[in-house]
Formats: sequence, C-alpha cells, structure tokens
Amino acid sequence: MKATAELQVIPIGSGVSVRKDILRVVELLQKFDFVIETHAMGTDIEGELADILAAVELIHETMHNEGSVRLLSILKLGTRIDKDPTLDGKNL
Amino acid sequence: MKATAELQVIPIGSGVSVRKDILRVVELLQKFDFVIETHAMGTDIEGELADILAAVELIHETMHNEGSVRLLSILKLGTRIDKDPTLDGKNL
Amino acid sequence: MKATAELQVIPIGSGVSVRKDILRVVELLQKFDFVIETHAMGTDIEGELADILAAVELIHETMHNEGSVRLLSILKLGTRIDKDPTLDGKNL
Amino acid sequence: MKATAELQVIPIGSGVSVRKDILRVVELLQKFDFVIETHAMGTDIEGELADILAAVELIHETMHNEGSVRLLSILKLGTRIDKDPTLDGKNL
Repeated sequence: MKATAELQVIPIGSGVSVRKDILRVVELLQKFDFVIETHAMGTDIEGELADILAAVELIHETMHNEGSVRLLSILKLGTRIDKDPTLDGKNL
Repeated sequence: MKATAELQVIPIGSGVSVRKDILRVVELLQKFDFVIETHAMGTDIEGELADILAAVELIHETMHNEGSVRLLSILKLGTRIDKDPTLDGKNL
Repeated sequence: MKATAELQVIPIGSGVSVRKDILRVVELLQKFDFVIETHAMGTDIEGELADILAAVELIHETMHNEGSVRLLSILKLGTRIDKDPTLDGKNL
Repeated sequence: MKATAELQVIPIGSGVSVRKDILRVVELLQKFDFVIETHAMGTDIEGELADILAAVELIHETMHNEGSVRLLSILKLGTRIDKDPTLDGKNL
C-alpha cells in the first residue's frame, strides 16, 4: 500500500542546533525507494507504507547508535484507496 | 528498543462523527503487547518500537479493508537510551 | 516575537477530497504579512507569533462560517531567542 | 468559539530531561479557564479557541523570558459547529 508522509525527527538534549541530525535523517531516507521533499518543518515522503515505517525504525536505531540520547519523531501518514497517493497530487 | 508513542487516526471523508473508527483503532491496538491509555486527542502507547510501527501498518490496512477510503495518522514516537521510556515515567 | 510554523487544517466529514478547503486556508494565510511555502503535508509559515495564532483563529472561524462542520488543525510552532527564525534558515 | 486541543511543548537544547519545563507549561495553562488533562504525550485542553491560542503565546514568551533558548510546540486544535466540543465527549 502506497502512502504519503511527513517525518520530523527532533533530537532532545543534543543542543540548540539540530541541523547535523536533520541531515542524517535525510541521508537515511535516501537509502529507500522514496520520493522525498525536504522543507523547513520536516521531510515529505512518498513510498510504500511498510518502507516508510521501516525507515522510521532505522532512523531511530541508527541515530541512537551514533550517540543521540533522546529522539521524538512526529510522523504524519496518509493513505487512501480511491487513488494512488502522491506528493505531486497533493501540491496546490 | 522500547518506545512511547501517541497515535491519532483521522478518517477523512467518512462523516463528522468518527467514534466508531476510533474504537476500532483501540481494538486493534489491544491485539498487541502494549500499555495503552486512551484520551481525548489520541491514544498513548508504550511498547516495542517495531510493534508500534507494525500496529500502525495493521490499522491502516485493516481499516481500508473494512471500508475507510482515506486515513491520516498523526504519530508521535519517543525513544531514549538513558533509561527505559514508560508512559508512567512521563506522567506528571 | 518571530516564529516559524507549519499548519495543516483537516476538514472532517466534508468528503474525501479536501483540496478546495486547503486552497481556502492558503488564501486566508495570504492576507497576513507572512512568508509561506505550501507543500504536500501542510503550509510552512514565517511571521510574528501573534499573527500566526491570529491566522489560525481566523481560519477556523471563517471556514465554519462558510460551512465546514468540523475542523482539526495540526500546528507546529517554533520560536528561538538565539537568532531570528526563518524558513530559509531551516532549509537544508 | 469553543475548542478542544492538545499541546506538547518541546524544549530543544535544554537537556535530555524536560520535566521541569513541562510542569511550567501546565502551571501556565492553569492560569486560564480551561479543563485540562495531562498525559504522557501532551496536555489536553478544553476552552475558548481564542484563550487556547493566547495561552500558547504566553507559554512561548514566558519560557523564553525564563531562559529557554528554543521551543517547538505541537498543537492539535479541534473545533466543530454541530455540537459543543468537550474533552469528556471525546473520551471512549
């Protein structure tokens, strides 16, 4: 099942600037077969639902292994069966 | 890896009252080995990260199979490695 | 105080397609002195904190007046005092 | 117009433990004429839409004045005109 999503990963307690962590999130997302669009408040993702969820798991595990002590992700996840959801189809 | 989470599943286009859908979400969450606490704006979940993500996938798939045309989930997902995250430990 | 934000307004019970509502949200945001960037999962906003909150109130009131029965907004709101927050400064 | 809401205020860069900040958020919410219910992933709020938005502004301003360098709020905001929204009416 295809899905569109938005992921924002927030490192808690790793300092005021989180740019390095955000770049790592995007780098990990790029390992998957996704359409991704980064923006100021998260990264939009188009892909298989199962892959998006696997990516979230990989990101939390990898970033903890690389030193992040605490992470909070905000994931918006949209699915529909009347047509294929795409990022493009949702742009205005 | 353990996680604490909050899941809110929003049926889009299924009518103004969504109570029946919310009850189905909670019923599906109860199939897993989670601590869950329902509240007015979602359901808090404590469990294994992989199980929480599997539950989200099961919920979307099951609800679409049962007739939901469009679903949007808002998932907050917290992990930490300095101690075991629990819902109880986060209550004030 | 300046802020960066993301607003996603979800009409509940108004049908599976919500494009017309989303266009109205953006139109209402454009009445304010904001930098805005629409994307597939919401609209990013840069502006005064008080104006962003006033816009959210105006949007709910206007859309209810125009016939929306039920609305759920997801608002992410970021502020910082070490430097001026901008959408541009947060792009990768 | 009445609303139901959920507010989660996330201090970024203030350390791994954010309990003191969360307690301050709840203390500030209690200055308003709200029904509030704290839970592990945020605080649910029932009150006037304008008051909820005023509270969010007060919280950001107060916490920055008290030393927080960077804050991210996640606000869910629900309004409806078919009946009065209450936290109680949304509990299962």
